[in-house]
Amino acid sequence: MIKNRLFTPGPTDVPPEVLNEMAKPIFHHRTPQFREMFAEVNVGLKKLLCTSNDVLTIAGSGTAGMEAAISCAAPRDKKVLVSNGGKFGERWVKVAKLYGLDVDEVKLEWGVALTADVVAEKLATGEYGAVVTVYSETSTATACDLEAIAKVVAATDAILIADCITAAGALPLKTDEWGVDIVASGSQKAFMLPPGLATLAVSEKAWKVIDTIDAPGFYLNLKAYRKSVAADDTPYTPAVTLIRGMKVAVDMINGIGIETVWARTAILAKATREAATALGLGLCSKSPSDSVTAICLPEGIDDSIRKNLKKYGCSVAGGQDGWKGKAIRVSHMGYIDPLDTIGFIAALEYTLADMGVKVEIGKGVAAATKVLKDWK
Amino acid sequence: MIKNRLFTPGPTDVPPEVLNEMAKPIFHHRTPQFREMFAEVNVGLKKLLCTSNDVLTIAGSGTAGMEAAISCAAPRDKKVLVSNGGKFGERWVKVAKLYGLDVDEVKLEWGVALTADVVAEKLATGEYGAVVTVYSETSTATACDLEAIAKVVAATDAILIADCITAAGALPLKTDEWGVDIVASGSQKAFMLPPGLATLAVSEKAWKVIDTIDAPGFYLNLKAYRKSVAADDTPYTPAVTLIRGMKVAVDMINGIGIETVWARTAILAKATREAATALGLGLCSKSPSDSVTAICLPEGIDDSIRKNLKKYGCSVAGGQDGWKGKAIRVSHMGYIDPLDTIGFIAALEYTLADMGVKVEIGKGVAAATKVLKDWK
Repeated sequence: MIKNRLFTPGPTDVPPEVLNEMAKPIFHHRTPQFREMFAEVNVGLKKLLCTSNDVLTIAGSGTAGMEAAISCAAPRDKKVLVSNGGKFGERWVKVAKLYGLDVDEVKLEWGVALTADVVAEKLATGEYGAVVTVYSETSTATACDLEAIAKVVAATDAILIADCITAAGALPLKTDEWGVDIVASGSQKAFMLPPGLATLAVSEKAWKVIDTIDAPGFYLNLKAYRKSVAADDTPYTPAVTLIRGMKVAVDMINGIGIETVWARTAILAKATREAATALGLGLCSKSPSDSVTAICLPEGIDDSIRKNLKKYGCSVAGGQDGWKGKAIRVSHMGYIDPLDTIGFIAALEYTLADMGVKVEIGKGVAAATKVLKDWK
Repeated sequence: MIKNRLFTPGPTDVPPEVLNEMAKPIFHHRTPQFREMFAEVNVGLKKLLCTSNDVLTIAGSGTAGMEAAISCAAPRDKKVLVSNGGKFGERWVKVAKLYGLDVDEVKLEWGVALTADVVAEKLATGEYGAVVTVYSETSTATACDLEAIAKVVAATDAILIADCITAAGALPLKTDEWGVDIVASGSQKAFMLPPGLATLAVSEKAWKVIDTIDAPGFYLNLKAYRKSVAADDTPYTPAVTLIRGMKVAVDMINGIGIETVWARTAILAKATREAATALGLGLCSKSPSDSVTAICLPEGIDDSIRKNLKKYGCSVAGGQDGWKGKAIRVSHMGYIDPLDTIGFIAALEYTLADMGVKVEIGKGVAAATKVLKDWK
């Protein structure tokens, strides 16, 4: 008997409370019942995202949210700075180009984060209307200092569009205090939901820009969502079941307190990094994210480690592109607790030993257990 | 966020597959649909219990099953030998006396198991019609050598009634090969179900005795269940939802293979014992059961340890009677895997440290992880 545990950086495991809520009978969305629920969800989302900005929810993946943000909010008469340090940065460059934007791509080595200095230097030219960055680049398990970047952008006329898909609800994120104009997220990460919803927190500064743009999209048009959300509604058919689940998940997170959730995510990441080090394994990122850890595979071990980890019930992601077969990526987001993480390290030890790597069984779990002693 | 995990020796956690099955709409029990399902359940139960004997299922707790067995199958013209090494042995003595049986109680020190030698000596007198014993005494986490006892009883005219409630599906149990006449079990232990069902495997030898007895009970009358089960039915309204869940749970167990399940339970118990030893804790039983481990609490620690363990999401049972405040009891039955068990040991380390016990954090989990390396 194997219990399956998702340590993939999305989707993540969904709590039974949320699954049970989503199993309840469907109801119609053009009703007071829906609008009341949606109003509560929106209050909860604002709390979770530390914002009083509008939060829009789109039935779609995180990519839908980011495409809506870029296509609706990047000024056409100025350049857009897009950082690309991995698969998602690469994608946002593609999307920006697809919409005919004047893209200045900051290409980063994988595992290296965008710095506020680079952004400041670029923005000093006055040529930029928007900055697009990824807070936690899932493909490289790398986090930038979004707070520092936001402060730089906030001091200019440019707006900041942040892909917070593998970050919101996991890494510290003070949307209003830091001045992040658009925070995009997806449901299947730290929100503890199945995939299918994107959320966007949009600042007043961003709306002023959006209002000047005649964005070509219909479904991914932020103005339509703004108009509807003012009446606790959605412009197109909402994914009622997922929003119902979101009500429960967001209440769970806010019940715990978002700062506590950030702290838990951070300590799970630290325990995983220290266990990896204790086992003689390296970390792939130079700026490791606390939402996902990329562990370098030792000499002679390839991506088949993932299939072998599954024998112990643990799902992780592999490396992509240049990191293919050289890394595994392990999530710390959402419905994962310290006991799960310690169990995962045991499974990693067993798998490495099964594959012929010399590991001292118990050394990684002992290291992780020591770190997690401080979890409360 | 705390994930709750049951390490209580009943109830145990129920797999989502079983919960989902039980969440399906109810159907009527006097139908071909029920009888077809029940026929399949009965085939599966026989496989799980290694028997070709009738298996009867009663809507009730394990106690209902044991009362049915004792009241229906203990001959009135002979003595009944009842071993009492804990709370359950004590209960079967009470039940036997309630039915006016001539009870010879073998009182054992807590943590000591009944031996085949004692049974052989008693039965040599020819005065006994039945032997009642507990395979795994939940209150003391002590297992007897049921195989050896069964072989002694099988060589006589007496029948053996075994309380296998915390044993069936966890400890090796070859009903027919060993000659156990009545095997009683309950759903909320290794069967991975909620409480509410008792099962009884009854041998031909036992039926011959039962047919000579005019048992006073109506609901707990084995003859009624025998007659119905021959037609894949039940004499009184069955707990349809639980039987529906039982179909899935029994299929899961048989899909894995009962011998593999026994081996998993044994290695989880071994890992727990070795972790306890590594942490300087003693074991309460002189014959530790592999289905549940009783760990002695160190000087100065009382039953409040259970409340403290709950802070880490782990539920365990405490000591009873003379062991109250001196032990915790930890289950290895059912839907628990090695990763859960390693996580539990971490929670135990944290809890002891929180309560001021000097423990080397990581030492217990390392010991458990080493033992469980051999789990496949």
